Amino acid sequence: MSTTTIKVHGMALATCTARVLLCLSEKGLDYELVPVDVAAGAHKQQPYLSLNPFGQIPAFEDGDIKLFESRAISKYLAVKHKDTGTDLLRSGCLKESAIVETWMEVEAHQFNAPMRTLIHQLILGPLRGSVPDEKIVETEVDKLGKVLDVYEQRLSQTKYLAGDFYSMADLYHIPSLFYIMKTPKASVVTGRPCIHAWWNDISSRPATIEVSQGMALDKFLSQKK
Amino acid sequence: MSTTTIKVHGMALATCTARVLLCLSEKGLDYELVPVDVAAGAHKQQPYLSLNPFGQIPAFEDGDIKLFESRAISKYLAVKHKDTGTDLLRSGCLKESAIVETWMEVEAHQFNAPMRTLIHQLILGPLRGSVPDEKIVETEVDKLGKVLDVYEQRLSQTKYLAGDFYSMADLYHIPSLFYIMKTPKASVVTGRPCIHAWWNDISSRPATIEVSQGMALDKFLSQKK
Repeated sequence: MSTTTIKVHGMALATCTARVLLCLSEKGLDYELVPVDVAAGAHKQQPYLSLNPFGQIPAFEDGDIKLFESRAISKYLAVKHKDTGTDLLRSGCLKESAIVETWMEVEAHQFNAPMRTLIHQLILGPLRGSVPDEKIVETEVDKLGKVLDVYEQRLSQTKYLAGDFYSMADLYHIPSLFYIMKTPKASVVTGRPCIHAWWNDISSRPATIEVSQGMALDKFLSQKK
Repeated sequence: MSTTTIKVHGMALATCTARVLLCLSEKGLDYELVPVDVAAGAHKQQPYLSLNPFGQIPAFEDGDIKLFESRAISKYLAVKHKDTGTDLLRSGCLKESAIVETWMEVEAHQFNAPMRTLIHQLILGPLRGSVPDEKIVETEVDKLGKVLDVYEQRLSQTKYLAGDFYSMADLYHIPSLFYIMKTPKASVVTGRPCIHAWWNDISSRPATIEVSQGMALDKFLSQKK
C-alpha cells in the first residue's frame, strides 16, 4: 500500500459524519468508514472514548493523527490535500480564506443551534417514536428564519456564501439542509429564492449525491409517509 | 502612516470583542477600538448592520477586508501575522495545527453553549436587575462540568489544551472563564486542579492582563458585593 488508510469512525447517515465524508469526496480520497454502534451506546464506552473523549461521532484516524470534531477533521483534510480536488479553504488568498472562515463560523454560531433542534424534533424524535413539540418547532423555525434572511440577502449578491466559488462554508451546511428538505419545514429553504437556488446547486454536486446515498433516513421517512 | 489602522467595532468588556483583542495583544498589533452603543441598539441598525448583518459585536476592518464573527477575525489575524508575536495556530506543523483546530472546535461546540448561558444568568442578567434562575444555573453547571471533566483529563497530560504550547485553543476560552471566575460558580474551575493551574497560567499572560483591564464588569461586580 502506498498510503495509510484514512479511517472515519461514525455513521454515514449522521450529519457530522456526513460532513467529513463530503470533504473526503470533494477531495477524491479513499477511506474506510468504521461503523460505531450508537444504538448500543458504543460511542459512550471504551475503546471509542479513547478516539473521542466527548463520546460523539465521528472520530478520525490518518496514520498517527487522531482527531475528533467534524469541522476540525474537515479542515485538516482540506489543509493536507489543498492541491487535490476542490479548493475548499482558498488558502492561497488571505481575503478569500478569511471570508470562507467567517461563513464557516456563521454556520457554527448562527445556523447550527436552531437547525440541530429542528432535526431532533422533526427527524430523530419521530424515528424513536416521539411527536414533534410544535411550540419548540415554531420557535426554532423563527430563529432559523431570521438567520436565513441574512443568507438570502448574501446569496442575492454572491453565488455561494463566501463568494462566487464553492467552499467549506457551503459544504458545512449540507447534511442538515439535506434532512430539513425531507420535512414540512423545507419551506425555510424553498420559500427563499436565492437560498433555494443555492441548495439546488450544492445538493447536485457529485460529492453531495455520493454522500447522500448513505443518508438512508431518506428512504426510511418515505416508507413512513 | 506605514500601515492601515485595524478597526475593531465592539465593546472591550464583551466576551467576543475581548477574544479579538486578546489575539491583537498576543500579536502586538496596534488597533482602534470603535465603540458600539449596544445599550442604545446601535448594533441592530445601519450603519452597523453593513459591518455585521447578524447585528452582533464585534465587527472588524483591516483596509478593504471587513469581517465579523470573533473566531474568524482571530484566525485571520493569526494567519496574516503568523510570524509576529505568539504562534497561535502552529500552521508550520500539520499535526499540531490539526490538534489546535480540534480544541478550537471543542470550545465552540462543547464549552460555549453552557458557559454562555451561565454568563447570561450570573453576570448579564443581574446587571440588568434580574435574579439568576437556579434551576437553569444548576442544569448548565452540570452540562459544563461534564465537558470540563474531559478538559481536566486532557490537562493532566498536556500543559495546554492542544499540547505543551499556548495556542488559539486556550485563548478562545479566556473571556468567559474570566467572568465565571467572578461568580460563585468559579468552583467549576477551582474544583478541578489541572484546569485551575491552566487558568492561573493563561490568565497571567501579559496579553490577558492587558485585555482584562478593559473588562470592567469586574469593578462593577465588586462594588455590588
